[in-house]
Amino acid sequence: MPFTTFHAKAELQKGVQVKATSRNFEITVDEPKELGGTNTGMNPVELTLSALGACQAIVARVYAKKFDIDFDDLWIDVEGDLDTDGFLGKSDVRPGYSDIRFTFHIVTDAPKEKVEGFVAFIEQTCPVADTIMHPVNVSLHDIVIETDKE
Amino acid sequence: MPFTTFHAKAELQKGVQVKATSRNFEITVDEPKELGGTNTGMNPVELTLSALGACQAIVARVYAKKFDIDFDDLWIDVEGDLDTDGFLGKSDVRPGYSDIRFTFHIVTDAPKEKVEGFVAFIEQTCPVADTIMHPVNVSLHDIVIETDKE
Repeated sequence: MPFTTFHAKAELQKGVQVKATSRNFEITVDEPKELGGTNTGMNPVELTLSALGACQAIVARVYAKKFDIDFDDLWIDVEGDLDTDGFLGKSDVRPGYSDIRFTFHIVTDAPKEKVEGFVAFIEQTCPVADTIMHPVNVSLHDIVIETDKE
Repeated sequence: MPFTTFHAKAELQKGVQVKATSRNFEITVDEPKELGGTNTGMNPVELTLSALGACQAIVARVYAKKFDIDFDDLWIDVEGDLDTDGFLGKSDVRPGYSDIRFTFHIVTDAPKEKVEGFVAFIEQTCPVADTIMHPVNVSLHDIVIETDKE
């Protein structure tokens, strides 16, 4: 399946809670109370970091053999800086992340230099990292004014 | 909380399954069988679209009053094009999304022109949209070679 179109749907619930679905999977997205939500799930920017870390972990699994790296365990900590004043219109800063950092943890006997090359490859090859690092053409396809609840 | 650092952790499980956590929330990420997984959750690129749609829905909720738009229901369909040959190293195309489109559905009596201005604002103000549309500095903070399982 080389050229693929992926889908998701986000349905606003009460307040700022959202039911996000893709295929048969569903996630509850919300904001913590201090950001005006009811704290029933990760918020969208935390979900974005989760997607990035998960993607890097999957790339690691898929390519470990090619890099001849055996590991017993692997996890990635991701953190991102965002100035909420941008979203709130209180300043001209961008509303999204300015910087995202990740720390790669691996339980392995492989030498550090080998792991470094592996991690550099993962950073370049991860689809979500590429999506975040480089511009993507995001566009409005249509606005549908519905006359009744779906 | 203007300048905020958000966090997530991705722990690789069996195969390409990942446990992604942020604060006290947990999501299972996986790939469908045709992409080498066991299909127990959305994959990372679907999760990215979910984060985008959820973020736009939340922005809509937060700013509806400012745009004087009353609505009974609101949902957003998101789709994104990705050439998996990039990730698989079969071609030089980027591994991430090239294009993402969204369709905005709203149950409202507001006139179309008013909704159009509202949606244009949402597109510009959404933190996840900004993160995807414009470059973000993603960097490796550290590689930790662990001697034992965390």
